[in-house]
Amino acid sequence: MASNSFGILYRLTTFGESHGPAIGGIIDGCPAGISVNFDAIQRDLDRRKPGQSSIVTQRKEPDEVEFLSGIFEGKTTGTPIGFSIRNTNQKSQDYSHIKAQYRPSHADYVYDEKYGIRDYRGGGRSSARETASRVVAGAIAKQFLHPISIQAYVSAVGSIQLEKGPEQLDLTLAEKNLVRCPDPQLAAKMEDYIKQVRKEGDTVGGVVSCVIKNVSKGLGAPVFDKLHAVLGHAMLSINAVKGFEYGSGFNGVKMKGSEHNDLYHEDGTTLTNRSGGVQGGISNGMDIYFNVAFKPVATIMQKQDALTKEGKIVEMQGKGRHDPCVVPRAVPIVEAMAALVLADFTLLKRADKI
Amino acid sequence: MASNSFGILYRLTTFGESHGPAIGGIIDGCPAGISVNFDAIQRDLDRRKPGQSSIVTQRKEPDEVEFLSGIFEGKTTGTPIGFSIRNTNQKSQDYSHIKAQYRPSHADYVYDEKYGIRDYRGGGRSSARETASRVVAGAIAKQFLHPISIQAYVSAVGSIQLEKGPEQLDLTLAEKNLVRCPDPQLAAKMEDYIKQVRKEGDTVGGVVSCVIKNVSKGLGAPVFDKLHAVLGHAMLSINAVKGFEYGSGFNGVKMKGSEHNDLYHEDGTTLTNRSGGVQGGISNGMDIYFNVAFKPVATIMQKQDALTKEGKIVEMQGKGRHDPCVVPRAVPIVEAMAALVLADFTLLKRADKI
Amino acid sequence: MASNSFGILYRLTTFGESHGPAIGGIIDGCPAGISVNFDAIQRDLDRRKPGQSSIVTQRKEPDEVEFLSGIFEGKTTGTPIGFSIRNTNQKSQDYSHIKAQYRPSHADYVYDEKYGIRDYRGGGRSSARETASRVVAGAIAKQFLHPISIQAYVSAVGSIQLEKGPEQLDLTLAEKNLVRCPDPQLAAKMEDYIKQVRKEGDTVGGVVSCVIKNVSKGLGAPVFDKLHAVLGHAMLSINAVKGFEYGSGFNGVKMKGSEHNDLYHEDGTTLTNRSGGVQGGISNGMDIYFNVAFKPVATIMQKQDALTKEGKIVEMQGKGRHDPCVVPRAVPIVEAMAALVLADFTLLKRADKI
Amino acid sequence: MASNSFGILYRLTTFGESHGPAIGGIIDGCPAGISVNFDAIQRDLDRRKPGQSSIVTQRKEPDEVEFLSGIFEGKTTGTPIGFSIRNTNQKSQDYSHIKAQYRPSHADYVYDEKYGIRDYRGGGRSSARETASRVVAGAIAKQFLHPISIQAYVSAVGSIQLEKGPEQLDLTLAEKNLVRCPDPQLAAKMEDYIKQVRKEGDTVGGVVSCVIKNVSKGLGAPVFDKLHAVLGHAMLSINAVKGFEYGSGFNGVKMKGSEHNDLYHEDGTTLTNRSGGVQGGISNGMDIYFNVAFKPVATIMQKQDALTKEGKIVEMQGKGRHDPCVVPRAVPIVEAMAALVLADFTLLKRADKI
Repeated sequence: MASNSFGILYRLTTFGESHGPAIGGIIDGCPAGISVNFDAIQRDLDRRKPGQSSIVTQRKEPDEVEFLSGIFEGKTTGTPIGFSIRNTNQKSQDYSHIKAQYRPSHADYVYDEKYGIRDYRGGGRSSARETASRVVAGAIAKQFLHPISIQAYVSAVGSIQLEKGPEQLDLTLAEKNLVRCPDPQLAAKMEDYIKQVRKEGDTVGGVVSCVIKNVSKGLGAPVFDKLHAVLGHAMLSINAVKGFEYGSGFNGVKMKGSEHNDLYHEDGTTLTNRSGGVQGGISNGMDIYFNVAFKPVATIMQKQDALTKEGKIVEMQGKGRHDPCVVPRAVPIVEAMAALVLADFTLLKRADKI
Repeated sequence: MASNSFGILYRLTTFGESHGPAIGGIIDGCPAGISVNFDAIQRDLDRRKPGQSSIVTQRKEPDEVEFLSGIFEGKTTGTPIGFSIRNTNQKSQDYSHIKAQYRPSHADYVYDEKYGIRDYRGGGRSSARETASRVVAGAIAKQFLHPISIQAYVSAVGSIQLEKGPEQLDLTLAEKNLVRCPDPQLAAKMEDYIKQVRKEGDTVGGVVSCVIKNVSKGLGAPVFDKLHAVLGHAMLSINAVKGFEYGSGFNGVKMKGSEHNDLYHEDGTTLTNRSGGVQGGISNGMDIYFNVAFKPVATIMQKQDALTKEGKIVEMQGKGRHDPCVVPRAVPIVEAMAALVLADFTLLKRADKI
Repeated sequence: MASNSFGILYRLTTFGESHGPAIGGIIDGCPAGISVNFDAIQRDLDRRKPGQSSIVTQRKEPDEVEFLSGIFEGKTTGTPIGFSIRNTNQKSQDYSHIKAQYRPSHADYVYDEKYGIRDYRGGGRSSARETASRVVAGAIAKQFLHPISIQAYVSAVGSIQLEKGPEQLDLTLAEKNLVRCPDPQLAAKMEDYIKQVRKEGDTVGGVVSCVIKNVSKGLGAPVFDKLHAVLGHAMLSINAVKGFEYGSGFNGVKMKGSEHNDLYHEDGTTLTNRSGGVQGGISNGMDIYFNVAFKPVATIMQKQDALTKEGKIVEMQGKGRHDPCVVPRAVPIVEAMAALVLADFTLLKRADKI
Repeated sequence: MASNSFGILYRLTTFGESHGPAIGGIIDGCPAGISVNFDAIQRDLDRRKPGQSSIVTQRKEPDEVEFLSGIFEGKTTGTPIGFSIRNTNQKSQDYSHIKAQYRPSHADYVYDEKYGIRDYRGGGRSSARETASRVVAGAIAKQFLHPISIQAYVSAVGSIQLEKGPEQLDLTLAEKNLVRCPDPQLAAKMEDYIKQVRKEGDTVGGVVSCVIKNVSKGLGAPVFDKLHAVLGHAMLSINAVKGFEYGSGFNGVKMKGSEHNDLYHEDGTTLTNRSGGVQGGISNGMDIYFNVAFKPVATIMQKQDALTKEGKIVEMQGKGRHDPCVVPRAVPIVEAMAALVLADFTLLKRADKI
């Protein structure tokens, strides 16, 4: 099944396992004429990269992208943009112990069931390393989308939860701490908690929220490809994601229609924004905002029971360098996937009318 | 933008507005050789149909499907299954008042922005009437999927919430009350609450949960088309949906890895099922379960401010026959969309290995 | 396999067997705002319809299309256009003799091999009746494409061949005779020949040529979706087609580069047009022209050996009302498929640049 | 527009310009478990490679492919196979003269019209160098397709034409001469003719024929994705192709139905094979054969008028190292595209029945 592409007109296809020669992708359908800001691409890669701070995995991967095509004299040409990122820090010996063992809540078992074969070095294709390719494609999409701005941030780590909505926050503060939470006090608490969890050899989940501003009206489609449905698809395709909600989300369930409805101003904007910028699947120009739930990372530095290929339960000691909490590094990935969705719908919208 | 199709190998394309001559669709890629149970299809349509009980809209629409192709001597032939459902109960005059006015939290405004033209009779294409076509396609998919079973039920209406998980419930009770909640006591409360809300001329949201049993291993794909990502896409494409979570969902955020991980039995099943039957995007054979959040219906029988095409705010009185709460009727729609996803991945899986 | 759709942004999906209740389709992605000329649609259907003249099949099928959605107050709304054409002239008894027999050079045998089941009444899904749906969608595409004009005509029947190229012909003469050949003398010869072949109970092949004028520059894509490659796909998908060539075609093989190259005028037009309006897969604004080869119809009114399901060779007498030569009726089908391709690329082109 | 992918379940996406850092691609959907024969891949690349003989372009490009993912311990894993081929022999200075000039019958002009920007070094994306990526993907597809065999050969160079059909030829002789024509006498004539044409600074067209043996029954789909329609699409997407015909092709036009029909043997094979192995768009198990027409290469070593960006006609001297006739090198490309089509339909076929 060819399932490694995302998007219709602005389409990313990725390849690569964590411990093969390289990961990378092809951005197909990127419009011609974008002046590419390579620094901005690297900046987003650096926000995702392992080893960037004391609360993430200590693996060192430079994540330098090489562009192989589709950009000429600094501009996109309309032809496919091929790119690769070499895998330089593979320590394959680290993974020999999982060759014949299935780690709990990893994809090892299902890969063997599905394909009858598995690249057992690290996560293989299920490694979150794949998301670096998404960040590259998303960073270029962001440049095409200007003046639409996309900003994600951490709104929960474990039970430590930001109570304020995006309109009550100064989002510029998010990138000023290691956790990427725009509330500095809470960020400090989250950081402490992550460090404590790491010390326990354990991991913890979190929530990434995202706000998209200056959205053009009319993005999305009425039925199957509602803007929020494709955004949800995009977010749920990120490793470790367990849930997605936009606008009023799961809390909207409890409201009455008379409370929930967004009344109009004369200019078509709305007094409230429980719709989250999307009505009937189509953007109305208001801010789009949504939340993405991440489970705790499955690899823990504790002993756990694992299953062998032969169907025996054995004790396994977690090894390697893994994130105690993925949400700080997930922030640019959420932004990248949102950018891919918006870029695609921006192009698709051009076909709406005669 | 061609955006009215769902699925790759088992693909549904739908057409139709609430007040045109008919709605319907084409099921393309349905495998040959399925003995079609037409009663089962009608049964699911009846579960979705307006006017079925005292707590749903009192519109009367028989929702009789005519199959136009693709079925011969009671069996699917592998060719596309065209079908239509006539619109027999349109009262177009009911809608003349919204021709030049945009109702709050409806899609009226964005359609005009997107297309420059809008079928203003009822919801037009954004009407939930479109979902009847999904129920037809889903009902056929269910027959193909046997012995996989898919059952949805109502787990919340407003703040009245079922606390038990699916494994603690007798799901056969769900269809025995008007609300479709498998807890009879809670169902009665929900029913009372819906009736009270209707009396107020108001509406309320709710949650539909779904459990899929006897799932084959290996459904879904590793990266963009993770099984839960496509399920999320499917659910978020249903009218009024604001959120989707599977397995541990948003609650999983608060857990530690050591609590969250699902340890294996020797046969590859797991002791717990926080993964919700999906690991790394691929089914592991355990039950798949997920929750879908529905907002309160936007049409309320109260006065509200609306926006005119000319940019004036005017008072508008809600009219027509609408649901005070959509979740009882959404149950078969959730099942249908789940069936479409599983049918598609079941066919796609056949291409995994040499 | 879902294989009954054609196009990316302007996409037609069709359904229907020759002897089921109806054929029809869904046009998805048709831009909003087209004022639909229903007479023009019926005109193209009438050009394709059986029984229209003495040299085509004498079956009587009115081929009246009912539009079910997507058109409101005479204009397209951007939502999918569902339509159906009832099958009113099925004489199923005519086909009982082929229930268990495979006719030579028909699709009977391969359908049974592929699907294990077959609607044996007439051609079923392989009947050219399906192309009526293409004509509907193509006729609407033509209205969107204005001022691009698409005209097909018959350029060969058996060995009787038009030697002049399209630029030497008055194409307005094509629709003035039953054969649809723009050379009246040759048309008369072709007509006589077709009548003679019919008397013999036999059939004969032919060529349909097509010219597209006023083409915008930049349609098509550089690699896999070259304009002529998608046109070729479209034409080869029409029943009985055996070959496709554009521009210099198979004759270009014999030329040298110095003869074949099209030199430029200062305005970017070319002195010659051996490129056929397409260079590197992309339209250059010159006329697009191509030829489509049709084999003789397989059903002949003679005795032939057929194969039974049980693997016996039996003599079979051809029955029913069939075309002695398909090309006169194929002319509007070729135009329709060309219109679908151009409509799609016209929309796709809007995404080329920032 | 994302248009650099080919196939549905076995899907190739390519990237790369002739003078950028690299070309390459991603094979998505390749089934797991294929033991990859790397020598066979290189062998096909070598058959396509420039500089391989005295009658092709004298550019030296080693065309060494690096596989970046999707293959583990010598076997495909079911994950995407990323690969790249470095461009090592770019002489960008050779092309400075065409920066502001449009060569006749090249894609220079239409790229500028379409994208407003163009990588003017060599052919850029329109260079046939892109086809090396297709050869890689096709070579792997061939290994999956076993025992289906695909063999292409040269059947015409200019007016020198092989009169025998594939069943009268010893196809093993094709690879034994530089032209790749299985008739040694004719091959010698062709070789002489190509050399003479080259001396004149000119180029000439040709025909590549292809035969596919041991085809399983049931490949292809009834309507838009007829096997021969997708094969035609594939072939017409190769640089310089002007026409495609299969089975009786353009000659079938002249035949009567009574001559053209293929009568059955009791085992379902046919006495004749004018159908070319495909009936109603679906393979019947007989050999598939088709012809592909290639025009003469546009770059000639003579003076020709070119168009400048400013709209002036100027004389231009052809430069560089180009093929006098592409068909010898096109043989493995035709095979590769055929292999991609067959691999895709082989996988799709698995979804035909319950």
